[in-house]
Amino acid sequence: MLDATHDPARRSWVESANGHSDFPIQNLPLGLFTPPGGHAPRAGVAIGDAILELEDAPPDGTLNAWLAAGEAPRRALRERLSAELTIGASTRARLHPAADCRMHVPARIGDYTDFYVGIHHATAVGKLFRPDNPLLPNYKHVPIGYHGRASSIIPSGTDFRRPRGQMARNGGPVFGPCEKLDYELELGIWIGPGNEQGAPIPLAEAARHIAGFCLLNDWSARDIQAWEYQPLGPFLGKSFATSISPWIITPEALVPFRIAAPPRPEGDPAPLPYLTDATDQAEGGFDIALEAWLVTPGLTAQGLPPHRIADSNARHMYWTVAQMVAHHSSNGCNLNPGDLFGSGTISGPERDGYASLLEATQGGTQPLRLASGEERRFLEDGDEVILRAQARREGFVTIGFGECRGRVIG
Amino acid sequence: MLDATHDPARRSWVESANGHSDFPIQNLPLGLFTPPGGHAPRAGVAIGDAILELEDAPPDGTLNAWLAAGEAPRRALRERLSAELTIGASTRARLHPAADCRMHVPARIGDYTDFYVGIHHATAVGKLFRPDNPLLPNYKHVPIGYHGRASSIIPSGTDFRRPRGQMARNGGPVFGPCEKLDYELELGIWIGPGNEQGAPIPLAEAARHIAGFCLLNDWSARDIQAWEYQPLGPFLGKSFATSISPWIITPEALVPFRIAAPPRPEGDPAPLPYLTDATDQAEGGFDIALEAWLVTPGLTAQGLPPHRIADSNARHMYWTVAQMVAHHSSNGCNLNPGDLFGSGTISGPERDGYASLLEATQGGTQPLRLASGEERRFLEDGDEVILRAQARREGFVTIGFGECRGRVIG
Repeated sequence: MLDATHDPARRSWVESANGHSDFPIQNLPLGLFTPPGGHAPRAGVAIGDAILELEDAPPDGTLNAWLAAGEAPRRALRERLSAELTIGASTRARLHPAADCRMHVPARIGDYTDFYVGIHHATAVGKLFRPDNPLLPNYKHVPIGYHGRASSIIPSGTDFRRPRGQMARNGGPVFGPCEKLDYELELGIWIGPGNEQGAPIPLAEAARHIAGFCLLNDWSARDIQAWEYQPLGPFLGKSFATSISPWIITPEALVPFRIAAPPRPEGDPAPLPYLTDATDQAEGGFDIALEAWLVTPGLTAQGLPPHRIADSNARHMYWTVAQMVAHHSSNGCNLNPGDLFGSGTISGPERDGYASLLEATQGGTQPLRLASGEERRFLEDGDEVILRAQARREGFVTIGFGECRGRVIG
Repeated sequence: MLDATHDPARRSWVESANGHSDFPIQNLPLGLFTPPGGHAPRAGVAIGDAILELEDAPPDGTLNAWLAAGEAPRRALRERLSAELTIGASTRARLHPAADCRMHVPARIGDYTDFYVGIHHATAVGKLFRPDNPLLPNYKHVPIGYHGRASSIIPSGTDFRRPRGQMARNGGPVFGPCEKLDYELELGIWIGPGNEQGAPIPLAEAARHIAGFCLLNDWSARDIQAWEYQPLGPFLGKSFATSISPWIITPEALVPFRIAAPPRPEGDPAPLPYLTDATDQAEGGFDIALEAWLVTPGLTAQGLPPHRIADSNARHMYWTVAQMVAHHSSNGCNLNPGDLFGSGTISGPERDGYASLLEATQGGTQPLRLASGEERRFLEDGDEVILRAQARREGFVTIGFGECRGRVIG
């Protein structure tokens, strides 16, 4: 529901919020941060290039309680912050320069689930393995997902070590550093209020269990993954690290950017009734531009800008986030506040939208060429990937997600 | 290392511990319990048919801090409790009848990982799907595992609802109650001290990261699983519920029951160096009898005893628990105190050792016949499965794990 907090005429006394910031007064995402010299993490809201510290310290040092509280208090906080940051300057004392603060993973993540709803990704990856049968028979019936590793989720800006692992070779498997390190551009979904075990969440109620969104980079060791993943799915090929952007973009901030769920191509099966809801069909999609950029040691040394490696959009999701919630809980599985979903890689249909190197380089056979003269089949030590997201719509102020950065070190 | 706490002559003043109890004074497992009229969970040790409450309240209501503390304090507590329960009766005031207490999942489980190290299970299940090629090529090189769902892990004695889900039919998938509900008999492994992200645990150090053991029933909806599991592995076919026995059996209690890791059959490949360690080879196995029993409404109505459906042993694990820890962290994945591993179904090589109904009934084609006149292909509403484990060795007192019970309701 649109309200005054979406008014494009509303401006903040935090001047940096009024230009081309990811965080105008129409956004107001929550995060967990430590200011310079601070100790315990604090709750804050991003505004321009500053962070406004909230009065209430987060209980147990996380935003789980805020996630659990649900829509009404979240909406009330948004309205209060929107007012305070428009007219009053009484809160100036609680403003910290964002560049001086350290951001944290905002919640204690109970369980992390990664879905596979980017149909162009599933098709492109499937083609590499099964040229004549890229999509498995269940894909258009089931919002496929798997349990991921929660412990190794790290906030944007955290370096991680190149994983080692078993990889297949002609003479038998070897153990060593991953040679096919990849990224995956995904949307992250924060779960708010949970459900009791044994009590599924109907699709029509799924929206009120979703507390926010972020960017998620599902780092993938393709060679480890290829050797280990049958029959039980991805494990060590993924569990070494997953990066997320630290700001929780609220459903309220994204209201102007909801679109109809993408129409299913002619001939595709209709979802089963538990995955069908008229409201979700009408407004379950998102128009959010998603991009991935590569920074290499060579580009940096030559003073060259990052190289854009993917230009996609959240509209390319075959299943809606509400369908993910309804499906995940349909067997009685209990979701908890602070659970995190990944959408799966959201690739566009064309080459410039391929949101992993596996797709963009066709399994490493067609390397990317960079302005520095470097080539990339997969990621090399020192490479950094930056994910960005912006929601734009005529007549509304653009809002961004802030960056999701991660760099691999040897 | 054997010490005085293993002395078979040591007896407790808690008389019920001196007979055929799972919990003699040589066991001393820790758990989290609520006594009658109690509120916050308390830490206790099982002794005979009683629970001795520990003086120190568990911080944050879990045993995570105790798990994190590692071997030295765990061993010191064992020695103190063994002495107190032998000679002193000063602790009598802290004794509660176990039957009156409610047991809890003992720790906040950060991440739950399920392995697949029961080679007879992997072979039997593989035969059902791929008669000519039951074991995939990676099985004897990789301790295969997958991330499981932590939120739906429940303590023994908790009923759970039959899951609903998508299942394949000739005319296309349908959504409804699972028709092929199964159990899986597994050993659970509690992680103690963790490792930093990016810093793998070498196999030779793996033992000190293991804080204890339990029984684990990996309830499985075979029809949901069959339709959803490709390409990303088990998800809703498992995540509705996992039952565990509530007592943490310590590595110290199991010292007398360590055996050599099972020798690999002639022709099997040697593990890669990161999975090879002489000490682990010499004493990485366990001789623990594992059983599963079925209680049906029919058996109960007719006053008949439970029907044993599996008679197996932990010695049938193809990989050791230390190999699981080393492999899991080999890519840099960080383990945390309170993480839980499942071993995977530990079937014996013969029919009476098949530790799931999928195996025992050959996919439901050869039903079990019970003394009540009932037949079972898979579990029906009201059925209860009881897992039991006992470690026995000549010259030592037998120790048990306590039951892992779970009942499905409609």
